[in-house]
Parts: sequence; structure tokens; C-alpha cells
Amino acid sequence: MTDRPLAAIILAAGQGTRMKSDKHKVLHPIAGKPMLHHLLDTVDSIGVERTVVVVGARREQIEASVEGCNVAIAVQENQLGTGHAVAQAHDALKGFAGDVLILYGDVPMVSADTMRDMIYRLNNGSEPRAVVLGFRPDDAGAYGRIIADEQGEIEKMVEYKDASDAERGVNLCNSGLMAARSTDLFILLDQISNDNAAGEYYLPDIVMLPGQKSAVIEVDDPAEVAGVNSRAELAAVEGDWQARRRERAMADGVSLIAPESVWFSHDTQISADVVIEPNVIFGPGVSIASGTKIYGHSHIEGATIGPNANVGPFARLRPGAVMEEGSKVGNFVEMKKATLGKGAKANHLSYLGDADVGEGANIGAGTITCNYDGYFKYKTVIGKGAFIGSNSALVAPVTIGDGAIVGAGATLTKDVAAGDLALVRAEQTAKAGWATKFRSAMLKKKAGK
Amino acid sequence: MTDRPLAAIILAAGQGTRMKSDKHKVLHPIAGKPMLHHLLDTVDSIGVERTVVVVGARREQIEASVEGCNVAIAVQENQLGTGHAVAQAHDALKGFAGDVLILYGDVPMVSADTMRDMIYRLNNGSEPRAVVLGFRPDDAGAYGRIIADEQGEIEKMVEYKDASDAERGVNLCNSGLMAARSTDLFILLDQISNDNAAGEYYLPDIVMLPGQKSAVIEVDDPAEVAGVNSRAELAAVEGDWQARRRERAMADGVSLIAPESVWFSHDTQISADVVIEPNVIFGPGVSIASGTKIYGHSHIEGATIGPNANVGPFARLRPGAVMEEGSKVGNFVEMKKATLGKGAKANHLSYLGDADVGEGANIGAGTITCNYDGYFKYKTVIGKGAFIGSNSALVAPVTIGDGAIVGAGATLTKDVAAGDLALVRAEQTAKAGWATKFRSAMLKKKAGK
Amino acid sequence: MTDRPLAAIILAAGQGTRMKSDKHKVLHPIAGKPMLHHLLDTVDSIGVERTVVVVGARREQIEASVEGCNVAIAVQENQLGTGHAVAQAHDALKGFAGDVLILYGDVPMVSADTMRDMIYRLNNGSEPRAVVLGFRPDDAGAYGRIIADEQGEIEKMVEYKDASDAERGVNLCNSGLMAARSTDLFILLDQISNDNAAGEYYLPDIVMLPGQKSAVIEVDDPAEVAGVNSRAELAAVEGDWQARRRERAMADGVSLIAPESVWFSHDTQISADVVIEPNVIFGPGVSIASGTKIYGHSHIEGATIGPNANVGPFARLRPGAVMEEGSKVGNFVEMKKATLGKGAKANHLSYLGDADVGEGANIGAGTITCNYDGYFKYKTVIGKGAFIGSNSALVAPVTIGDGAIVGAGATLTKDVAAGDLALVRAEQTAKAGWATKFRSAMLKKKAGK
Repeated sequence: MTDRPLAAIILAAGQGTRMKSDKHKVLHPIAGKPMLHHLLDTVDSIGVERTVVVVGARREQIEASVEGCNVAIAVQENQLGTGHAVAQAHDALKGFAGDVLILYGDVPMVSADTMRDMIYRLNNGSEPRAVVLGFRPDDAGAYGRIIADEQGEIEKMVEYKDASDAERGVNLCNSGLMAARSTDLFILLDQISNDNAAGEYYLPDIVMLPGQKSAVIEVDDPAEVAGVNSRAELAAVEGDWQARRRERAMADGVSLIAPESVWFSHDTQISADVVIEPNVIFGPGVSIASGTKIYGHSHIEGATIGPNANVGPFARLRPGAVMEEGSKVGNFVEMKKATLGKGAKANHLSYLGDADVGEGANIGAGTITCNYDGYFKYKTVIGKGAFIGSNSALVAPVTIGDGAIVGAGATLTKDVAAGDLALVRAEQTAKAGWATKFRSAMLKKKAGK
Repeated sequence: MTDRPLAAIILAAGQGTRMKSDKHKVLHPIAGKPMLHHLLDTVDSIGVERTVVVVGARREQIEASVEGCNVAIAVQENQLGTGHAVAQAHDALKGFAGDVLILYGDVPMVSADTMRDMIYRLNNGSEPRAVVLGFRPDDAGAYGRIIADEQGEIEKMVEYKDASDAERGVNLCNSGLMAARSTDLFILLDQISNDNAAGEYYLPDIVMLPGQKSAVIEVDDPAEVAGVNSRAELAAVEGDWQARRRERAMADGVSLIAPESVWFSHDTQISADVVIEPNVIFGPGVSIASGTKIYGHSHIEGATIGPNANVGPFARLRPGAVMEEGSKVGNFVEMKKATLGKGAKANHLSYLGDADVGEGANIGAGTITCNYDGYFKYKTVIGKGAFIGSNSALVAPVTIGDGAIVGAGATLTKDVAAGDLALVRAEQTAKAGWATKFRSAMLKKKAGK
Repeated sequence: MTDRPLAAIILAAGQGTRMKSDKHKVLHPIAGKPMLHHLLDTVDSIGVERTVVVVGARREQIEASVEGCNVAIAVQENQLGTGHAVAQAHDALKGFAGDVLILYGDVPMVSADTMRDMIYRLNNGSEPRAVVLGFRPDDAGAYGRIIADEQGEIEKMVEYKDASDAERGVNLCNSGLMAARSTDLFILLDQISNDNAAGEYYLPDIVMLPGQKSAVIEVDDPAEVAGVNSRAELAAVEGDWQARRRERAMADGVSLIAPESVWFSHDTQISADVVIEPNVIFGPGVSIASGTKIYGHSHIEGATIGPNANVGPFARLRPGAVMEEGSKVGNFVEMKKATLGKGAKANHLSYLGDADVGEGANIGAGTITCNYDGYFKYKTVIGKGAFIGSNSALVAPVTIGDGAIVGAGATLTKDVAAGDLALVRAEQTAKAGWATKFRSAMLKKKAGK
């Protein structure tokens, strides 16, 4: 790398019409995080000091999304080309002297290493005026070609439509990403013209200005520079991200029985010797400790799990779910802002919201914490070793003492002291023969229809 | 196209033994619709006036399936070849003068455009006696080959086993589909013989009759003429259909986070800016309006949803489910013949059957509409803004007024007036120390084992 | 084959560090069965009399896993190479005279046919001293090469790093698996040296000993000899197994709408004309009879189902679940050690544990069998044609007679006689206008915040 200060310009002024969305294109998520924020996090990670996002249509969505981030906004009122877009960042970078990365909001997967490589190349070897990030796709198609020597010194950059057959035979393509010194960049941009069919200022033209020396470096994995212009391309980039994430999980010692059916979030943390069955979806904010098993058909978000816990199948963990060591959440159970103590169990058909369940407690099937009155939320506290009978409704705020038992079918509105049994239950009555009579009456009625 | 009347003959007399099924092969579904009905719908869409289905074994299943459709049945008693099968349609087409498409019940994905192209070719250019639909597979394998000139005039059609090396080198293959004039077709069929190893009348032989001029047109996508002879081929055609449907959804502005894990029905309707998480299965009759999010692990059939609704995860919507604007159905919730009004919520572990839930109402966790007495179904009506406490059983028929509250754990059998609170609840009692004693007794008993 | 006695040596002494697991590598499962046990079952199936597993680190895990199996353990204290490992089996095979298969615990998918072929070759044709199992991968990469003539007589076996270009051009590779006579094997092993860079005794060196005649046979499908050294390779072998199992299911007449989303267990048994929707996970011990439909998002283990049953969607069947003919388990229903009689239904949100449900009985939504008191489990018996109202808790042990009806919302603690109606229900009371007042109070409180 270099000790020179770093800035990044992220172009995000495109219309994104092919997305057919009211949402700005660069705010569509990959692995649960907007594309723009993938880039913002990556430039943060390499120590970029100043980031300028160039916006156009729907700028208010971008502004709302970067609120609180260390990001300047530059507006490109009219869509006059990529060169014009970069030039709009000039004011925002006033006073900045250093190296500038030019990135695209819809090319979100560029790695920190690649960004560092671009900066490194800018400041080493031939010390070019600009560094272009090239890639070699399986099918170069209609991408612009880069003609360069073995040291990466660029002889020519040419649009596909203008390329000779020999040039088209080259499969080193222009990703559009660049690095340049701030002291050069805007001077170069002033020199390019819009004397072309579209009447636009093209960023790559700075490379071909007379007397320039520019260099290309190649990205290792072309997937890093995949652009997103449609929902299908969004899904493709997501798929690629997930495939790499799954590989990483397995390399870290996580068993994925069917890797292709597990979807991670951008920040999922999983320890070795976690086993994950097929069909598991992770939202943001999940960490799982060693020895835990996640059964299939589970949906997990904002949860802290394990070690040696059992989750699912058919578990729904929502933000604030905490499962301590050896605890179990079974099928058709939902947890939200709730802690399940060491070894505690909620195995069937339950809702635990705003609850604190003590070590070793047993939550019977069909238990529901009634945490909401339509206006406010209230807390349920269940003591260590307590046993909540099946089909109970715990009307919060309510506290059940250590070792207490709640009889099945209770609607609990008052606290239960430690060691007590609480019952809320009407008498069982029988009407002899009633069912038999009812049946014959109903069968007659049905026949009479 | 043409203004000439159109007919279609669909061959469906094969045994389909490789399916190993008691169900007739052409009734196995693709995207939830029987193969035969894919073809019937397509021929309908291009204005076919008369459709004859040629049946053999299990004809009663076909007859039941096309009841109410404008379809004639012709019976092929003995399996004497495709030429013989088509000839059985003669009587059913008596009096019909126009163009005839010959289709196969187990080749269900032929598009309307392809059918139109066949008819167009029949009536244009060289005006051939028959038009054959050809395809170019990746691997031509043992398919019959079509030798034709650049205008598609057929010189020869030859079975693979009879083909020379040069002929085998041609990769234009015979799909079996044809178009011919009704005035020609049956005359031609009378001229072919069964003088071959199998003793069968082969439909393609009409092309090679002396003095005939026939033409081939090529299908754009070989997948259109994929045949289904086994469950594996059925799954392959389904997979191909789903892949195309997913592409179309994304092109229409629907976000599929993992397209490969979403299964559509033949008639699913989804607006732009709908987001669908992984693992969603659609049955027939679903429409979803813009801004709605379908969370993962959901199963949706016969439902009208949104706009701006939230569904799932783990939602089960069954026929007659209607979710109005901004309403929410959460995890482990089932709806059937039920309407959830604007902004109403049923977020957890509930069953809403034969119910009408008013705008803004809140259905607590574990609420169940008891709509069935074993013989008849009854309706539950919940007013606007009502609040149903958790773990309630609403014994229909029952009406809960606007703004009413039902206390948690109620088994409601009588109506509740607007603005009232209804409670059905026994007293909570405590047996001090009982749980502690029970535990020590049980532990002793367990140890004694 | 041969009538000579058979033995197998399974090497399982490797560290498996790339698995990053506390569990021994060969105990990681494929299709729910540990890799080692796939091999043990296969050698059993071809009549192997004596099996020796050579263990090293974590031998106690292996020993626990093979307890009760007819298996001898040999310990390799130090990792001195594969030749050394096989030699450790000498004592355990004392007195055995016959043919010996040398297998690898982390190469679990070798078929019985392949094993038989190795033994057959050992005893036929040139009667070689050793038979090596070769394979032809798509990419031979750095595998050791086998140079052999057309009869499979081995001229040379060579490590990739020592191979000439011509030898590298050969794509017949050494899987490591071998067969040899017990009378030869240990004598040959005594003759190899550890005079190599690693200082290890290599098993393949026995082939190149002077004066030896060895032969290679080729495995039909290279997937059989895929080794598992990492979780990614484990997932790959699992994926391959599942793909083959799905093909077999479809060939047997099972409809898989999306084969790639159905995961079988090693012992799943499914009859023809079973239909399986997407996203179904099978654990061990499942059999399904004809005409049954398994809806999507189901998780099924240890269950006996059908014929003509309906399962799911969102069904969880656990060990001991028995669904008789025409019975139905619907969404969010869990069964464990429970029988659902002919035509009986549990369609919604229920837990049936330790229960016996009679023919034609109807289990209402939200029914829970309270089978556990924290220490012991108890049984619920429900008679033929009984109707359990929704949201009922059946506190076991309890018996509900034939044709009885339990009113909705009951917590049942006493038996119900046949034909009776049982009710456990408090009075419904109303507080007029209470909800209206509560709302305005809450709104004020909320505004006051």
C-alpha cells in the first residue's frame, strides 16, 4: 500500500430502470446489506478518509441511507457520462491531496485487496497517471478491450464497436474502475470531450489523452467486478456471494449438509463444529457457538446461540433471541427479545417474546408470552427450573419463581412464587351421550341438504 | 398466421409405463397444471376451433380431466403406431376443413408462437403438404434426422438406425410435431404402410410418400419439444419451466434472493417491487401486489395479497386467503377462506379459517377460529381495530365488534359488542410448595426405577 | 466372486485436521450415516467375515461407534504411512486365510459391485498378487498414475511428482484401494521401505516390489472413490449421493417436483405414486406407501406413512410417528411416538406425543397432548371418530372414548366416556365499554411519553 491519503468516489447516479423498482438501484441488498454499503464498508476497511457518492435521481434515498456515515454527497443533475459524474466530486474533494479510487455503486463486490492493489500500482513501477482495473471474463462479449504490454502499460483502450478483429481477440476487458491521484484526476477530466455519438464525457477517455501513461492491473476473480443492472444480475451476484460464503463456512469447520440451501447474511458468525441442515435462512446479526446444531427449515436473525444448543427444525429466532449453552428451541417456536437460559427448553409451538427464561426451565408446547396489549410491551420472567405446562398463556408483566410449576392450560395473570404450583382451570364436566345425539342430528341435517 | 380454421390432434394413447404410475402420463402436472392442459390452453390461445385427444389406456382419466373443455375424444383401441393414432381422429374432424396441428400430450411445452409458425409455414412459401417441427439438440443422439435444404424443403427424414454417417452428422432432428391441411392429412395417412419391423404405421412416413413436398421449421428453444416419459423427465421439464418463470419474474421487477428456491405455479401473478425470500412454494391462484414481502419458508396457494403486505416466514395461505393493504401474516399462521383487513395483523401461531378480520385488528399469538364442528363450517367476524388476546379460541359462528378486546386465553362462544372487553377465564390459584414436593417425589420415583 | 473367505481392513487413523472438528473424520455422516458405517454395511453385504478398523487419534470415538458391530480394532500409534497402517491389522487377522480388501474410512462410497470386482480380478486371469482400484477422473491433476497394459497388468505406478510427461498424460489414477491375499499381503508389506522424503511406508509400494505381478481394475464411476478430507468434500459426496438417490426415487415412480430440494436418508423407503413437493428433509427410518403426498417444508424422521396419506406442508414427524391409510397431518403439526388411525386428521398447529388416535378421529387446531410432567411420559388415547375441539390440552394419562367430543379450549384431566361431550370452560363475561376506555387511556399514556 502507501501512506498517501485515500479518497473514493462512488458513482450512483444511474437510473437503474431495468430494476423496475421504486428503490434506488444501489440500495438493493446483497446478503442483506445494500450494495452501496458493501462498498462503503470495504473502503472503510482500507482506510479511505473521504468518500464521495455521486447521486442523481432518487438522491433522497441515498442521503437517508448514508445518514451517519462519513460520506459526502455530490449531485450530478444531468446524466452527461461517467467522466462528467466523476467531475461532480471535485468540490467535495477540495483540499484533499492523495489517491482516489473511482468505484460504482452497482459494482459492489470489489474486494479490499483489489482496491489496495490498484493504489499500490498507482504508486509503484511506472507510476502511471491512472490505473485501470481489468478483468478477463469467460466470454469477453462486447466489453471494452484493454491493449497493454506485459508490464500492464496501456497502449490502447477501445470500445468493442470500434475494435479491430485483433483487438477483439484480446480478452482483457475494462471494468470501469480506476485509481488516480487527486492532483491529476480533475485536470485530466477537464481535457476529455463529449465529441461522440451520445454527446457524453466518458471516464475511460482520460487514459487515452495524449502524453498519458496509464496502467492496468487484473482482478483475480472476474466476479468481483460483476455489475448489477437487473434483478437477475442482483440474484447472480447474491448467488456468487453465497457460494463463496458457504465455502468459507465449510473451510472454517461448519458442516453444511446441503450448502446450496443455506443462505447467510453479510455478518453471520459461525464457529467450527456447528452442523446446519438444509433450508436455513440467516438474517443479520447472528452468531453461533461450537457444537450447536441448526435443524432444517429454520429462519434466524439477530440471535446469539450456543454452544451445544439445538435449534429447530422450523425455528424462528428474531432479534434479541439469546440461547445459552445447551438450550433447545424446537419446532414452530418463535423467540424475540428473549433469553433461554442454560439447558432450558422450548420444544414445541411456542412464542417467547420479551421474556427471560431461567436455566433448566421447561416451556411446554403451546406456551405463549402475552407481551403486548396493543400499545406497550411487557416482560415475562421465568425462574430456574420452572416448568410451564402446555397451552399456557403468560400475561406479562408476570414472574414465575424458580422451580415453580404452571399447570397446563393456564392463563396466568398473577406472579407465581418459587416452588408453588399455579392452576387456572375450570371444572371438567361431562354431558353423557350428548356427542352421540349431536352426531345423529348433524347427519340428518346434512342429509336434508 | 392465417384465417383458415384450425384444429389440433393431441396424441395421448401411450402407456407411459416408465412413469410407474396409476395416473395417466399426460395428467401429471408441470407447474401445478396437467401436461395435457398446458397444450389445451396453448391451442385455445391461438384460436384452435376443434381439438381431438386420441386416447387409449386409462381413457376414463382423460375424459374426466377434459370434462367441460371443448375437446373431442377419439379412441385408439390398439397401439398401431403414431400414424394410426392420428388416423383415429378422422371421424371427430368430419366436416372440418382447415389446418391441423399434430401434438403430443407428453410434449407439453410447445409455445403458441411455435404453433403459429408451423401454420404460417404451411400456408406460405412452397405451401408444403406437411410441416414438420425440427429441433437442434445439444446432443442429437439417436433422434431421427431431417435432411433439408436452406429453405427447409425436406429431402429426407430418416430414423437414426437407418441413417448414413453423413446423415447422422446432421443435427436437425424430428420432434414428431406436424401441421397439415385436413384435406391432405387423412389421405396421406391412408397411403402409409406398416411394412416395418414393428408392424406399425409411422406418422413421419407421410413426409416421405412419393410426390410429397414437405417442409421443416426449427423451434427456437429445443426445451419446447422436450418429451416426458419418466418422472426424471417430468422433473426436468418442470425445472426448465421454473427457470424461465423465475427469469420472467425478475425481468418484471420481482426480487428473488435465491431464484432457484422459489417455485411458481402456472398462473402466479406478481407485481414489481415484490421481494421473495428463499424457499417459497406457490400453488395455483396467487396474485401479489407491489411492495409486498414474502419471507422464506412460506407456502401460498389461492391467495390475494397486498400491496405492502408482509407474509411469513412460515406462512401458510390457502385458497380464499385475502390480505388487504399493509396487512401482516407471521410465522406458523394459516389462513383459509379468510380476509385480513387493511393493516390487520396475525403474527404468530394462529389459524384463521372462514373468517373476516377488520381493518387494523390485532390477532394475538395462538388464536384459533373454531370453524368446524365435524359436519358444518361457520364464520368468525372480527371488527375493525379489535384486539384478540393470545391463545384464544373463537367458536364460530361468532362476531366480535369493532374495537372490542378479547382477554388472553378465552374460549369465546358468544358475540362481543363493539368496545367491550370479553373474558373467559377461571381464577388463578396457587398451591404453596407443591412443585417442590412434587419434584422430590418424582426424583425418588425416578431413582427407584 | 469367489468362495474364498473375505476380510476387510479399513484405514481410519488419519488426523482429519482439515475437517476442523472434534468428531473423528470417518464418523461424519453422509445421508445421516457415518462414513465408516457406509463401508461397514457394504462389506457386510458382500459377506466379509472379518473387518479390521485401523485407528489412531480419537480411537475411543471409533470404538464407541462400532460397539456391537463385528469389527476388530487395530491401533496405529504413530502415523508412519499407509503401508504401516495396513500392517497393524496383521494381529487382528491372525488365522485368517483368504482375500483382503483394503479400504479407507474417508472413501465411503465404494460400491459392493466394485468390491466384488476387485476380489474377482484377484482370483481370475493372471491371478495377480495385488489388485489396485483405478479411476479416470475428469481432471487427473496430481493423482498418482497407473501405467498398465490392456489386460490391466500394471507396469508401473508412479506418483505425479515423479511422473514423466508421457506418464502424466495417462489419466488412469490410483484410488489407493487394493485387494490381496492374506497370505501375500503382510509378506509384501514387510518388504517395502520408508526410504523416501517423508520417511513413511507407502502401501502402493507393494505393487512395485520386484517380481510382483499386480493388476488394476477401473471403477465405473469415479464418484465411488471420492475422498473426504474437508467439510466441502463431505458436502460434495453428500450431494452426489443425494443426486443418485433422487434419480432412483424417480425411476421407482416417485414424483419429485424439485428433486434438488429433497434430501433423503440412507434408508428412506418410498413407494411408487408418492408425490413429494419441494423442500422436504428425511431423517432415518422413514417408509412411505403409495398414493401419499408429502407437501413442501416438511421434516420427516422415523415415520411410517400411508398409503394415501397427506403430510404437511410444515409437518414434523418424529420417530414413532405412524400415519395409517388416508390419514392427514397438516401444517405446524408435530407427531412423536403417536399413531394416527385410518382417515384420522390433525390438520393444524398440534402436538401429538405418546398418543394413539383412533380411526376417523378429528384433532382440532391447537390441540396439545401434555405427555410430560418433567420426569415421566404418559399416554393419550383418543377413540375412533372422536372430535377434539380446537385449542385443547389433553393432560396424559387420559382416554377419550369412541365418538366423544371435547369442547374447544378444554384442559382435559379426566377420561371422557364414549359418546359423551366433555367441557372445561369458564363463563364468558363482558365489561361493557372497557375496551374503549382502555384505548383512550393507553393513547394518552403513549402520547405522554
